[in-house]
Amino acid sequence: MSLHVHKYGGTSVGTAEKIQNVAKKLVKERQASGHDLVVVVSAMSGETNRMTELANQMQQLPSKKQMDVLLSTGEQVTIALLCMALEELGMQAVSYTGWQVKILTDDSHGKARIEEIQTDKIRADLEANKIVVVAGFQGVTSDGAITTLGRGGSDTTAVALAAALKADECRIYTDVDGVYTTDPRVEPKAKRLNKITFEEMLEMASLGSKILQIRSVEFAGKYNVPLRVLSTFEDGEGTLITYEDEEMEKALISGIAFNRDEAKVTLSGVPDMPGVASAILKPISDANIEIDMIVQNIAEDQTTDFTFTVHRNDYEKTMQILQDICIELGASKVDGDNKIVKVSIVGVGMRSHAGIASQMFSALADEGINIRMISTSEIKISVVVDEKYLELAVRTLHESFGLSDA
Amino acid sequence: MSLHVHKYGGTSVGTAEKIQNVAKKLVKERQASGHDLVVVVSAMSGETNRMTELANQMQQLPSKKQMDVLLSTGEQVTIALLCMALEELGMQAVSYTGWQVKILTDDSHGKARIEEIQTDKIRADLEANKIVVVAGFQGVTSDGAITTLGRGGSDTTAVALAAALKADECRIYTDVDGVYTTDPRVEPKAKRLNKITFEEMLEMASLGSKILQIRSVEFAGKYNVPLRVLSTFEDGEGTLITYEDEEMEKALISGIAFNRDEAKVTLSGVPDMPGVASAILKPISDANIEIDMIVQNIAEDQTTDFTFTVHRNDYEKTMQILQDICIELGASKVDGDNKIVKVSIVGVGMRSHAGIASQMFSALADEGINIRMISTSEIKISVVVDEKYLELAVRTLHESFGLSDA
Repeated sequence: MSLHVHKYGGTSVGTAEKIQNVAKKLVKERQASGHDLVVVVSAMSGETNRMTELANQMQQLPSKKQMDVLLSTGEQVTIALLCMALEELGMQAVSYTGWQVKILTDDSHGKARIEEIQTDKIRADLEANKIVVVAGFQGVTSDGAITTLGRGGSDTTAVALAAALKADECRIYTDVDGVYTTDPRVEPKAKRLNKITFEEMLEMASLGSKILQIRSVEFAGKYNVPLRVLSTFEDGEGTLITYEDEEMEKALISGIAFNRDEAKVTLSGVPDMPGVASAILKPISDANIEIDMIVQNIAEDQTTDFTFTVHRNDYEKTMQILQDICIELGASKVDGDNKIVKVSIVGVGMRSHAGIASQMFSALADEGINIRMISTSEIKISVVVDEKYLELAVRTLHESFGLSDA
Repeated sequence: MSLHVHKYGGTSVGTAEKIQNVAKKLVKERQASGHDLVVVVSAMSGETNRMTELANQMQQLPSKKQMDVLLSTGEQVTIALLCMALEELGMQAVSYTGWQVKILTDDSHGKARIEEIQTDKIRADLEANKIVVVAGFQGVTSDGAITTLGRGGSDTTAVALAAALKADECRIYTDVDGVYTTDPRVEPKAKRLNKITFEEMLEMASLGSKILQIRSVEFAGKYNVPLRVLSTFEDGEGTLITYEDEEMEKALISGIAFNRDEAKVTLSGVPDMPGVASAILKPISDANIEIDMIVQNIAEDQTTDFTFTVHRNDYEKTMQILQDICIELGASKVDGDNKIVKVSIVGVGMRSHAGIASQMFSALADEGINIRMISTSEIKISVVVDEKYLELAVRTLHESFGLSDA
């Protein structure tokens, strides 16, 4: 018997009626396919915010340990309600909290990592023909403390359970019907992808296509769990995230990702000597500022220019820190721009196809879009352009790499 | 170091502000007394109803097992919030759900009985100067299923923890400031009792003074845990429920209890032979109707009259069943009255004082109140009177037994 793990997020179980719809979908799926089903659910949408507000009234900086005790009740409510709805439809169902499974984690409250999943009880329930309903997002330490996996952690629960149970597929039901070639709000010609590789999904997700928690994709890739993203509210095949196959290599580019929240800073005339990069970046990361792209040009007069991007919210702070570093290192000046965006093309196909970069750059040049910064990885090329060009750049690249074709 | 267990019910923790007030009270108590503190809390008022409504939308007859999974989240929310509030005030606090303690119960979902409480972790936390916050109302079976103890079960949790930890006192904080000689809404001269015995409290509670869950009083009596009922919202000593002492024996009567929801039925002319009582009562209890008082008079012509009281809601059904029994047994007729009430005087003092019953009956007779039925136990005398006499009867007895004196 094949085994599927399904995950329904907060908006999919946001009301009593929606939970009943999920129950109906599960019964239909069960009857049509005969699959064994393990279902992971999130808290009803709105619940996490409601509880967070209560916590903020209690404590200026709410204890992470108690936040986990508090927030984990959200999914516990959903598992109970979904089991009731399934039983009402004549199915046998059984619910599990994180500690009941047990989903053992480390003790990093609020962002715990799964260390081990005990599957014996779940297997026994599946053999007894029950639908197993598991609370997402939560686990328990070996000391019996309740932990949560961080926002979006229910995806991680689903993938980790699928890996532990050696499931045939892990389906993430959400409010979009799959992964698109780019954001349809920017490029109406954007199309749903039938398949995408784990690596591509990681690049797409971290670049702003916020469908799946990054960690769950990493996990799925690591344990080779076929992952499918699909809509709770419409029928459809969704997007299968899987290992690379021949068909995928044929496509040059899978999607165009972008990020609006970037700012760029440049320190010019830096003496070119060992240790300079670290001298610049350490004070920044000490200030808890995350750095995204980094570019260093080697200049001719034994000085160098050092450019990097940060989140737009950290722009002012970064500029202040750089002024100090500038004096300290005897650099010539600090420049910055917080009206820039990052646009990336992503695709495993670029590994086996030459000329992708030049095609990208000339497509942008043809539209008069000036590239301010370039960064590349094995399956991604990112450029920084002026904010005003974002939509034009995305549409140009979407067209240029044939993603708009029927 | 002496140890106190405190219990705060749903109305005491009904809002964020009220939880903060409880935290302040605990810190004040801790600083004033130096007691070790274990605090048992209920779900925020309204939460249980909110969740029950959700459950009723899911399933016609919601699964008791899943109801326990659902409802137990209520107290889990409160323990997290209270710990945060305590930490904000600079106290070290630690939270425990039922399964974390563990509070082991049988598997009677919705009305589980506590079998064992593990206290080692709590003791270690107390030694480390932490305030221990425990979710009331809930436990766990040896198989790891979540259970609840039934309505008011947080009182039971508090008393059971106090017994297991050999606490010096168990304090039940509620919205009344103690146990009264009778209901102040009926007799404005009613006074708060400083002390009452477990047995008296049981008679008072079961007769309608709904302050404490009966089971928790039984438990406290059995394990001799001094129990104090007091107000969350006002300062005061409350009422101590404890074992009998000399001072208490001096008082004739501790309180006047009453019950408005009674109905009385009589089967007359029943052949007086063995097995008749059972022939009458079995069909009633088979119909899940609870019988309260039973009186049988031996008549002279070898027949007897058989009278008993039931809850007023069960009156019609009881009358129907009795009609059938009447024919079956060859009795003469069935009478009933659902406009009656029960008034009781309660006090351990009556054990050592003669003439209490006659004082009661003559006090009522002096006011022209006809007694329809009498039932006595060692520390209680109950009479059934017409509904219209309830207030007069309560006030008359309150005065007659000196409870109204300053």
